[in-house]
Amino acid sequence: MSILIKDSLIISQDKGRKVKKGDIYIEDDVIAEVSGRISTEAEYVLTGKMVMPGLINTHTHLPMTLMRGYGDDLTLEEWLTTRIWPIEKKLNEDMIEAGTRLALLEMIATGTTTCNDMYFFEDTIARTCKKMGMRCFAGFSIIDFDTPEMKKEMLLPECEKFIRKWRGDELIKPVVAPHSTYSCSPETLQKASELAEKYGTMLHTHCSETRKEVYDVVERYGARPLEQLERNGMLTEKTMLAHCGWITKEEVRQIARAGACVSHNPVSNMKLATGGFTPLPELFDAGACVTLGTDGAASNNKLDMFETMKFAALIHKHHRWDAQIVTAQQTLDMATVNAASFLDINAGSIEEGKKADLICLDMDMPNLAPMHNPISHAVYAASGFNVSSTIIDGRAVMLEREFPYFDKQKIIEEAEKAKEKLVSNDAKQSTN
Amino acid sequence: MSILIKDSLIISQDKGRKVKKGDIYIEDDVIAEVSGRISTEAEYVLTGKMVMPGLINTHTHLPMTLMRGYGDDLTLEEWLTTRIWPIEKKLNEDMIEAGTRLALLEMIATGTTTCNDMYFFEDTIARTCKKMGMRCFAGFSIIDFDTPEMKKEMLLPECEKFIRKWRGDELIKPVVAPHSTYSCSPETLQKASELAEKYGTMLHTHCSETRKEVYDVVERYGARPLEQLERNGMLTEKTMLAHCGWITKEEVRQIARAGACVSHNPVSNMKLATGGFTPLPELFDAGACVTLGTDGAASNNKLDMFETMKFAALIHKHHRWDAQIVTAQQTLDMATVNAASFLDINAGSIEEGKKADLICLDMDMPNLAPMHNPISHAVYAASGFNVSSTIIDGRAVMLEREFPYFDKQKIIEEAEKAKEKLVSNDAKQSTN
Repeated sequence: MSILIKDSLIISQDKGRKVKKGDIYIEDDVIAEVSGRISTEAEYVLTGKMVMPGLINTHTHLPMTLMRGYGDDLTLEEWLTTRIWPIEKKLNEDMIEAGTRLALLEMIATGTTTCNDMYFFEDTIARTCKKMGMRCFAGFSIIDFDTPEMKKEMLLPECEKFIRKWRGDELIKPVVAPHSTYSCSPETLQKASELAEKYGTMLHTHCSETRKEVYDVVERYGARPLEQLERNGMLTEKTMLAHCGWITKEEVRQIARAGACVSHNPVSNMKLATGGFTPLPELFDAGACVTLGTDGAASNNKLDMFETMKFAALIHKHHRWDAQIVTAQQTLDMATVNAASFLDINAGSIEEGKKADLICLDMDMPNLAPMHNPISHAVYAASGFNVSSTIIDGRAVMLEREFPYFDKQKIIEEAEKAKEKLVSNDAKQSTN
Repeated sequence: MSILIKDSLIISQDKGRKVKKGDIYIEDDVIAEVSGRISTEAEYVLTGKMVMPGLINTHTHLPMTLMRGYGDDLTLEEWLTTRIWPIEKKLNEDMIEAGTRLALLEMIATGTTTCNDMYFFEDTIARTCKKMGMRCFAGFSIIDFDTPEMKKEMLLPECEKFIRKWRGDELIKPVVAPHSTYSCSPETLQKASELAEKYGTMLHTHCSETRKEVYDVVERYGARPLEQLERNGMLTEKTMLAHCGWITKEEVRQIARAGACVSHNPVSNMKLATGGFTPLPELFDAGACVTLGTDGAASNNKLDMFETMKFAALIHKHHRWDAQIVTAQQTLDMATVNAASFLDINAGSIEEGKKADLICLDMDMPNLAPMHNPISHAVYAASGFNVSSTIIDGRAVMLEREFPYFDKQKIIEEAEKAKEKLVSNDAKQSTN
């Protein structure tokens, strides 16, 4: 496929963070040329856009779109025990596929080109991402209880099979995802980290999301969650730590020293009232990698990374009484180059030779006018709904708001049907 | 005009807060019928929508869209002195009109049907709202310095002329808007309140937005801003107090006793890092009226009330470590019925006999699927970009994303031109 994007405003996210006016030529999966004027012919031509690297969502649970709005305004514990867990038990492969397809549709429609997922039925999720063209780091969940898919004893060996199946794939990268220090024993954490090391895959886990989690882990193991991860080989330069809302300054330095990465999920944290906050300025100062995530749609309730960028920048300004503490540029970096660098994908910026993972926003939208500063617009004024085209690995998975490779209406209807089954099962169960 | 909305999900916001399935028939400016099935013919027919009362934005500075993204990530003082004030001096009537038109386009496109504005050149703003069909409470700014439009001595007499011109208008309601206790002397506040009383208009003012403001006013007048307002006749049952981020528990009770209303502006407050926070739960407990506003686009940087609803609900959950503290229903109430009741407009809910101020959202959008709870979707999952039709006073000012009464492209281009003039003037000035 070849795509020519003409007369556009390009937020390059290159080393100089230059914003340029000009054209972009994409051939196959690569950005072949970026310059003032390109006269090559192409299969698809787009004109007059604001072009940005695709956004990278580093903490998701894709199928949880099925639970969007199912139990809001509840405490984390009540939410989990009365709403999420009872419904999760009913999940089957068809529902997982329906929920994942809806999540991918929403992410593609709002400008996400890579996600870092973690859930059950991860092979189904990986297959669905592959089919729909999403770049996905697929985290196979490891946890110390039976999942809706399999017995707990099967998780590690099945995870290994999963890695062997997907390694080498261009779009899908298998990831070992032990759930957390409170739901995985030290032995489980160790085995998971050994598995990741054996195959050179990433590790993805929850870390210090709530104060209760920290206290529980300290009580059980005599170590805070981060220390517990380190003790069991889980704090590596390939570890993505989701949340980190309750970490100390020493832990900030520890994360930086280890070369691990923090996925900050401001919307989910605020909605579930987890308290605390991910210490972005301190993490930046320590030289740690910080990226952004939406978390699952059940606790967000969207998968719009533009919204997440705005929440991320604003919550820290508000906390520190300092409008300069996390800037628009730093925020955009978290959602693009920081994440691409940590995930080791040749993307995250618009430069010749990079993978063609990029998005086009329509400029003739009232919220993007007038134009003083494109970076400001990208973070504070834009919405995922300004995105008109999403290109992943050189394929236009959304082209001028049309989806050439799948049927939007069908995906929405199938998600609705899957939800109906989940809820009716649930109702049946509760009256039994 | 007659409009029939069929087979829709209706978030009525009636006394029982019922969500219904059915049809709505609008004739002229009124909701003539709401029922299970209506077979009347109509000029326009819409089908299969999520219908809600139009959102009410109770604190805006419409023309500031021209400064969207012009000076972000700055402290409030630096932002005002180096960016906003120098540019505001250059404003003329044409620019005001261009900025207002852009603001109205954005608000109509994202589901706002009423706004409560406050700025200079308010007669131009009022005329523009009238022309474009926005219901507007137009606040004529009173302040102790010359405005770009007129000498300070002229403000009160011109405000009186303005009131006499607009009173009785169905769509535009004149409002007396003394800027704040730090920019208006006691005499000015008194005269403004007398003027409002004389004509029975609303008062609109900033109150306790920052800690510095509170300290400055205490130092100058020996009274906190709210006390200073009360002393000078400005705390009435017709007073809209924007921000109130730094009010005490006693002040909460004082506001409730007076029957005044607080306009909460979470996005602007967070972006400018004003610190503090509007004490919503305490205001609710005291029985005070609380509504929501975006503030101007220069400090937001959008005018999307859906985004404001989500920020409002989440910031309080986060602050109090309590996911239940401000619910989706309470948030939607602030943006609809609370505001309509305080502004004394026969709108804010979808009921027979009410003014037809309502919005339709497309249901076939990935972020609104699947449907567990419409109220949750309206507050946490929806975006202004889900809105496909906006009806104000019975007129479809946006109909299936088209604007029958104005040229979207022209409005955007004219705002861009007005901005160019503002910025070039500014550059010229700074090199002189």
